[in-house]
Amino acid sequence: MDHPTQLPTSEVDVVIVGAGPAGLMSNLWLSTFKGLSVRIIDKRTATVYAGQADGLVGRTQEVFNSFGFEERVLKIAQPMAEFSFWEPDRNGQIFRSSRTADGPPNMSRFQGAVLHQGYIERFLKDAIKEREGPDVEYGMQPDLLQVDESMVEGDDSHPITLRIRHLSEQESAPSQFGHTIANGLFRSTNFSTSEEEDQAINTIAKAGTQEIIKCKYLLGCDGAHSWIRRQIGVNMEGDQTDFIWGVLDIHPLTDFPDIRSRCSIHSARSGSLMVVPRENELVRLYIQLEDLERNMDGRIDRSKITPEDILRAAQKIITPYTLQYDYCDWFTAYQIGQRVSTRYTKFDRVFILGDACHTHSPKAGQGMNVSLMDAYNLGWKIAQVLQHKAPRSILATYEAERRPVAQELIEFDRKWSSLFSGKLEPNDNQAEDGLLEEFKQTFEDAKLFVAGITVTYAPSVLVDKTSHQKNDHSTKVLSKTDLAKGIHLGMRIPSYRVLNQADARSWHLQDRLPSNGQWRLLIFAGSMIDLAQRERVLAFADYLLSPLSILNTYASEDIPLFDIITVHSGPRTEVELSHFPPPLRKMSEYNNVFVDDHSYLEPFGDAYKNYGVDSIRGCVVLIRPDQYVSWIGDLEDTDKLETFCRGCLRRLPSSSSL
Amino acid sequence: MDHPTQLPTSEVDVVIVGAGPAGLMSNLWLSTFKGLSVRIIDKRTATVYAGQADGLVGRTQEVFNSFGFEERVLKIAQPMAEFSFWEPDRNGQIFRSSRTADGPPNMSRFQGAVLHQGYIERFLKDAIKEREGPDVEYGMQPDLLQVDESMVEGDDSHPITLRIRHLSEQESAPSQFGHTIANGLFRSTNFSTSEEEDQAINTIAKAGTQEIIKCKYLLGCDGAHSWIRRQIGVNMEGDQTDFIWGVLDIHPLTDFPDIRSRCSIHSARSGSLMVVPRENELVRLYIQLEDLERNMDGRIDRSKITPEDILRAAQKIITPYTLQYDYCDWFTAYQIGQRVSTRYTKFDRVFILGDACHTHSPKAGQGMNVSLMDAYNLGWKIAQVLQHKAPRSILATYEAERRPVAQELIEFDRKWSSLFSGKLEPNDNQAEDGLLEEFKQTFEDAKLFVAGITVTYAPSVLVDKTSHQKNDHSTKVLSKTDLAKGIHLGMRIPSYRVLNQADARSWHLQDRLPSNGQWRLLIFAGSMIDLAQRERVLAFADYLLSPLSILNTYASEDIPLFDIITVHSGPRTEVELSHFPPPLRKMSEYNNVFVDDHSYLEPFGDAYKNYGVDSIRGCVVLIRPDQYVSWIGDLEDTDKLETFCRGCLRRLPSSSSL
Repeated sequence: MDHPTQLPTSEVDVVIVGAGPAGLMSNLWLSTFKGLSVRIIDKRTATVYAGQADGLVGRTQEVFNSFGFEERVLKIAQPMAEFSFWEPDRNGQIFRSSRTADGPPNMSRFQGAVLHQGYIERFLKDAIKEREGPDVEYGMQPDLLQVDESMVEGDDSHPITLRIRHLSEQESAPSQFGHTIANGLFRSTNFSTSEEEDQAINTIAKAGTQEIIKCKYLLGCDGAHSWIRRQIGVNMEGDQTDFIWGVLDIHPLTDFPDIRSRCSIHSARSGSLMVVPRENELVRLYIQLEDLERNMDGRIDRSKITPEDILRAAQKIITPYTLQYDYCDWFTAYQIGQRVSTRYTKFDRVFILGDACHTHSPKAGQGMNVSLMDAYNLGWKIAQVLQHKAPRSILATYEAERRPVAQELIEFDRKWSSLFSGKLEPNDNQAEDGLLEEFKQTFEDAKLFVAGITVTYAPSVLVDKTSHQKNDHSTKVLSKTDLAKGIHLGMRIPSYRVLNQADARSWHLQDRLPSNGQWRLLIFAGSMIDLAQRERVLAFADYLLSPLSILNTYASEDIPLFDIITVHSGPRTEVELSHFPPPLRKMSEYNNVFVDDHSYLEPFGDAYKNYGVDSIRGCVVLIRPDQYVSWIGDLEDTDKLETFCRGCLRRLPSSSSL
Repeated sequence: MDHPTQLPTSEVDVVIVGAGPAGLMSNLWLSTFKGLSVRIIDKRTATVYAGQADGLVGRTQEVFNSFGFEERVLKIAQPMAEFSFWEPDRNGQIFRSSRTADGPPNMSRFQGAVLHQGYIERFLKDAIKEREGPDVEYGMQPDLLQVDESMVEGDDSHPITLRIRHLSEQESAPSQFGHTIANGLFRSTNFSTSEEEDQAINTIAKAGTQEIIKCKYLLGCDGAHSWIRRQIGVNMEGDQTDFIWGVLDIHPLTDFPDIRSRCSIHSARSGSLMVVPRENELVRLYIQLEDLERNMDGRIDRSKITPEDILRAAQKIITPYTLQYDYCDWFTAYQIGQRVSTRYTKFDRVFILGDACHTHSPKAGQGMNVSLMDAYNLGWKIAQVLQHKAPRSILATYEAERRPVAQELIEFDRKWSSLFSGKLEPNDNQAEDGLLEEFKQTFEDAKLFVAGITVTYAPSVLVDKTSHQKNDHSTKVLSKTDLAKGIHLGMRIPSYRVLNQADARSWHLQDRLPSNGQWRLLIFAGSMIDLAQRERVLAFADYLLSPLSILNTYASEDIPLFDIITVHSGPRTEVELSHFPPPLRKMSEYNNVFVDDHSYLEPFGDAYKNYGVDSIRGCVVLIRPDQYVSWIGDLEDTDKLETFCRGCLRRLPSSSSL
């Protein structure tokens, strides 16, 4: 690529293209690490957005909690408690055939909830600001991408060259297509701050100019029509159905009793409707649209669909109940396409995330969640490679870990959408019952998957577990998984309550695992009143203090690379803080030693039992910075722990003298 | 009083003098009501404060929750889980003799916690800003107060004239007296925003000028040396001890194992120490100081006391453990005085609140709480009188309700401080044990009182209950207290979990009682599947819809004066929203009907059982805007309900045609 040398040129570590959920989560994660230079650009203006997702599953909220802003979600989101199934009776009239819990009980601390994407982006931006991360630069679009293949394995090289064009206001703000109500391209609510609006005006002043950015890593978070994806020659696999779905966000006026419950309504002859109650007394309706006018070429022009069309379709389904609205917040019409991109990266230098790698129907409420989790998976890996704490080889795990999640989601979505759209014929009662029973069973079976807490990453340099692939001889298993039967390698560690030894305060263990870039060495110390066991714990502490231990081999220039958390099995009142030697507990540190014991005020966590750890002998668990479990071993397995760490960590140049 | 007529003069509804916790809570409450004009002034500059309270009891947090910012407290405060007692053994060496829960379990949703007063004031100010209430005007001090007695009973009169002087920076910022560490007059942490600092600079520009404010009500929240109190000729009753106490806020370096637990340490020969762990790993120490140098007149000059003096005293007590600090955040020295003012008001026009009416030792962590609750008691009453919704007679309940609380606190504090300071003589083991046992028992007995949830207001126009005073013939009891044995007239209503009928979401009932000025008509509907009971509920709803019902008699120009909340006894799945007629539930209202049933995700509230209400026949409870219970009756007791309301509510002029 030749570009005019007179263009202003700058170098940064990472460029993020696209400031939706995946882009902002990437920015937040990278902002958590000190000393990285990041720019995040978006072609839109600050006040205009496309997309309006709203489902937040349990795992996503766990991650928000790890970044410290989940309480803002809990304050305003509509939690999903119940799902109701409505179907036609023998006379074709709809009735509530059953109700079930919306999510899996007790698997996450947070239940599924619904909240407008605009709030989520606001919370992400505020969290980035707290960490002094970069603001989004709006009205900027890349128009040339070049990767110098000869430089991709270099440590501090900038193999990526990106040419950026500053857009005019007209270019960055898509026009409405004839409706007075905000539609799919527009947000109903303005979540931007006045600072952001000022900034947008400044940006417009640069309209038409270009600049060159050279970077080490490029993250394509630029949506379903990703420009980055096309530049790196990656295709989407899958298909697009002919079904058109309408979405209405309304404040409803209705006598339908379950309008504030999530529910599906299969009508006898008029198709299906899904009801999703939302924050601020709004309700979202998903309706399959039929009998739509087609163009000369047989295609449906979605821009001709009005809110009234969608409401009429909903009214037919919900009859004999009445349905009107006194306020329509937003609407859109979409076609279902279930697709996954063939690759997630080029050279492990350019990555695509979120909608750029997977599209599917919104009805399972998964889209924003999976996009956020793509970014949560990748961000810390890039940061630790940039900080020279980890080898570049860990970056290959992004595609290996996240592409199967998207594939599983697409499979589920295909089944769920098809069962949801399934036609019921009154003269075909047999098939009808079968379809609805399968629909309900699919819902029950998918609860854990939908909550996002069963995601399991395959063996790699970051996950040490027995491979499920028969022909994979590359993974040498170092873990003893039997030591913690409630903890699964490659899955996020579940959270149970433990008490702080120092002050008897009850903690959800997960609250001790904030997303700050640290690996966690979770030491289940077992019984500290058993003298033999205490010797084992002291020996492990001695190992950690030794010059060649992982603590001293993999030092960090900012915060310690390993955060040491000890949980003993109690009783709390028979053990003193002084029983725990450094580095398990240092002078004037009071938040590192916990105990599995009863609390004065909160429910008992029963942590040893729930984690499946022996209350005498304990074990050691290594947890990644994203709360996924890497390794499990005995207190004596320090050699195996070291071997594992050698695969995914790198000595700092400054610590190589040790 | 003659004042020069040329001074600028303005009229407002309320002037608040003093912007500490009591003043800010008053401002927040008044800002919650629409259309009131309020000014709040403080003689200090925005960046200099006196006082540094930190204890937050359960009830205070319930009130914060009702204003919507408790989650900010929970995020940062140090919860108090455990209290440890340390005392000398036979050899005079201290040891941990016992531990106990710091607070009463399950009596409030919120446990006692510790958080710097600066955070609390910040949260209050932010909540005021959200409600578009007035900013504090700093650097302003009243210097003349006149009340025109002939006007005090007038409806819209401004009987109070206040002359205000704008101070110079020198006047509003007290000088430090010789220490490099912030002391009692200074705050360690700057919690003011840049806007407030700008405003402070503008204020200084007016230095030396005067103005006149005429107002309807004046709130003296101006601290222990209250100028307002002196102007209205009210004295403080009680006494001041000769004991001097030192307070140190430090980041400790120590091998004392309970430094992160609240604890008392009674040493054999060196006095007593209280440890209070705080947010951000700070610890507050309270130490009785002895052997202090006295002036010629026999008085102790507290300004000569240094942090080193206080630390030395603490080191003696805590020996053989070591105690140092690497950071001292703040210190002070104080003398215990337990005093209550003889009156809380003049003409029910000028009121004093907080430290202006009660002073005591800080060791029970009550001061800020009682001050906040004074303001929470008074604010809504003044607002409803100003809005012509209530007669002026309700204002007399402020002193009647709050002065006994202060008296009870002073009694407790006197006992607690004396037991805490009690001398232990090694040669007097008998007395020693007795004192410590009484100390522990006092702690146990006071848990409920200290949490602030047993406060019980006496019978009045606002609380209908049997008088405990034999000679009080004025109260005619209209309530049937047996209908709700778990709900006590004059106490705040306890909170248990109930489910929303519409969406199965689990709510703490208290979350449905935000502080927005509404009275609550809490209808325990009993069993809606019992047809006879359903008729009773329908009849009560008919009454409410009738033209002369309390709903239609006491209308409001902004939000409805009565918020109707219905809780039926279930089961939820056998009852539909449509069973509840208006006004129990109106079309497109989905947050008024609740059920006492099991949740999919949260613990069962067992509300009927806990409230002591019959699950078939139910009852009706009237709750004040501050969550205290006014009246309890049967569904048929509408005449008694009306009689009660006539005593404390007023028809709006606009509704008198009904």
